[in-house]
Amino acid sequence: MKNSVLPSKTLARLISYLRCLQDLRTEGIQKISSEELSQRAGTKAAQLRKDFSYLGEFGVRGVGYNTQNLIEQISTRLGLNINRSAAIVGMGKLGPALLNYKGFPEHGFKIQAAFDKDSKKVGQKVGGIVIRDSSELVKTLKENPVDIGIIATPAEAAQSVANKLIKSGIKAILNFAPAILEVPDGVHLRQVDLSSELQILAFYLQKDEEAKERN
Amino acid sequence: MKNSVLPSKTLARLISYLRCLQDLRTEGIQKISSEELSQRAGTKAAQLRKDFSYLGEFGVRGVGYNTQNLIEQISTRLGLNINRSAAIVGMGKLGPALLNYKGFPEHGFKIQAAFDKDSKKVGQKVGGIVIRDSSELVKTLKENPVDIGIIATPAEAAQSVANKLIKSGIKAILNFAPAILEVPDGVHLRQVDLSSELQILAFYLQKDEEAKERN
Repeated sequence: MKNSVLPSKTLARLISYLRCLQDLRTEGIQKISSEELSQRAGTKAAQLRKDFSYLGEFGVRGVGYNTQNLIEQISTRLGLNINRSAAIVGMGKLGPALLNYKGFPEHGFKIQAAFDKDSKKVGQKVGGIVIRDSSELVKTLKENPVDIGIIATPAEAAQSVANKLIKSGIKAILNFAPAILEVPDGVHLRQVDLSSELQILAFYLQKDEEAKERN
Repeated sequence: MKNSVLPSKTLARLISYLRCLQDLRTEGIQKISSEELSQRAGTKAAQLRKDFSYLGEFGVRGVGYNTQNLIEQISTRLGLNINRSAAIVGMGKLGPALLNYKGFPEHGFKIQAAFDKDSKKVGQKVGGIVIRDSSELVKTLKENPVDIGIIATPAEAAQSVANKLIKSGIKAILNFAPAILEVPDGVHLRQVDLSSELQILAFYLQKDEEAKERN
């Protein structure tokens, strides 16, 4: 990559362009202009061109982008052309859903291991994966390392699970538990809090209702 | 609320403080300083005080905040003290997980209806809710309105489901399908793309690996 510092918002938009391009490919559309692509991704053409400038030059101005070429170029430059493995910890309700989520393998992510501390669940098979005992987590992942650890446990277990994942050598964690986790430098953490998303919507609904009452 | 324009990042942080405070309450901690609370939420005390200033004045400087009071004040001022209802569309893998997700009722969100277009699923009960036919969505939600529509369908169905939700009168949508949706003004949309989260982590892993190779 040309520039070593890619702003996180630029990264998010590049991934969004990539998603739109993959949809276009599915629809059989082979060429697209920066105007059309930016519109599909919910941004402006000037923003898209600025975002693309972080990846170096590509595309032919005036003629538009070749969908397949652009997918390959963005994927390669973002390092998304490499398949990645992951382990899920917590086989309550969300864990098995994530294990079976088709979007992950479609984007090159293979769930390779699943853990739960409930002895009734251990040994059961979900989505072709045998659930292992959480007490074996560090040992298992040291022997068969994965790239990403996904935490789908209740909030109170999340930090201790994160510690185990880090002990096993994992450098990237996606946390679904509604807990703020502490991780050492060098470990990348992303947090998805499903309840927060609903709360953000609830806030805007409330604002609208207040505005209506005033009118 | 004092100020009618609350920046979206401030809103996200306020919700994060609220989550931390609820954890503190669970832990039985009744008082907290702005330094400790901001640290727990992964930000700085100056930022927290600035964020709180959007809600008007509260707390006693020097003495710290009363956990329970602060929870009530933030909740009320953000409109999160009102219970909200939701409907989920798409009962594949993710939909039932969301239906059973405890974090939603814990934060005042009640899933009131579930829909799927698969006739084999229609009539089955998940988490105490009978799955209805998607063709009945508009009629059902007009008769029994909900506040928020949650889309957990495949990408290709998401826009048409969104259109139906909007037709039924819904003003807030949480979309889990990896599709960019278009909604009219006045409808609030949040997007959660689980694959993007893994791609963001994959990008940072790749950067680290590149850096290692250079050294």
